[in-house]
Amino acid sequence: MFDTPSSPKPRIRILIGDTVALGPGKVRLLEAIEQTGSIAAAARAMGMSYGRAWQLVRAMNGDFVSPLVQREAGGRGGGGASVTDLGRDALTRYREIERTAGAAVEAEVAEFSELLKAVTE
Amino acid sequence: MFDTPSSPKPRIRILIGDTVALGPGKVRLLEAIEQTGSIAAAARAMGMSYGRAWQLVRAMNGDFVSPLVQREAGGRGGGGASVTDLGRDALTRYREIERTAGAAVEAEVAEFSELLKAVTE
Repeated sequence: MFDTPSSPKPRIRILIGDTVALGPGKVRLLEAIEQTGSIAAAARAMGMSYGRAWQLVRAMNGDFVSPLVQREAGGRGGGGASVTDLGRDALTRYREIERTAGAAVEAEVAEFSELLKAVTE
Repeated sequence: MFDTPSSPKPRIRILIGDTVALGPGKVRLLEAIEQTGSIAAAARAMGMSYGRAWQLVRAMNGDFVSPLVQREAGGRGGGGASVTDLGRDALTRYREIERTAGAAVEAEVAEFSELLKAVTE
């Protein structure tokens, strides 16, 4: 999760368009929902309010051709949630785009980082 | 300012750790300062408060090995501001990184965009 302090490596984030259809926050949320099987648990794991998580899920579900997250009607304590096939597809593609872009600019970013102050902790 | 709905462009942010050293907002601010010769005018042009613009300038000036924006002691109405040589260098490199990364993932992003609802305005 953290870069070593000795190499303050710039990181790259990729956003689609002016609206963040899928960015790092939404991607982490999707991954957390996949791991926990619940929007509430995913929100807790991310230190995010349930309301905010639900807002992000609604936005994603509305922006894509079909939902990325499906709520399951549940028994006790309400239902869980799962990432749909489209959601997993979007996640995989997003990570791939991130990897491709990162690899393409690795050298340029390393050079750029020389303009930045070294991080001392 | 807007991409055509059919081609959502990825945007790049260069981060040190979790902090954005240079991203689209800071880059636009730098460009506006270069064009207007003033932090206040740049802020106005971007619909940003002067306080926020000044906060971003201070952050950038602190993150890089030397300032990206220089304030000029002025006469009537206070001084202007200019982008330093390092600031212009950072801008050029950032735009280049953005171009390289964007070109590398153009096809993948176009495919990804097919998962998104068409934008109707």
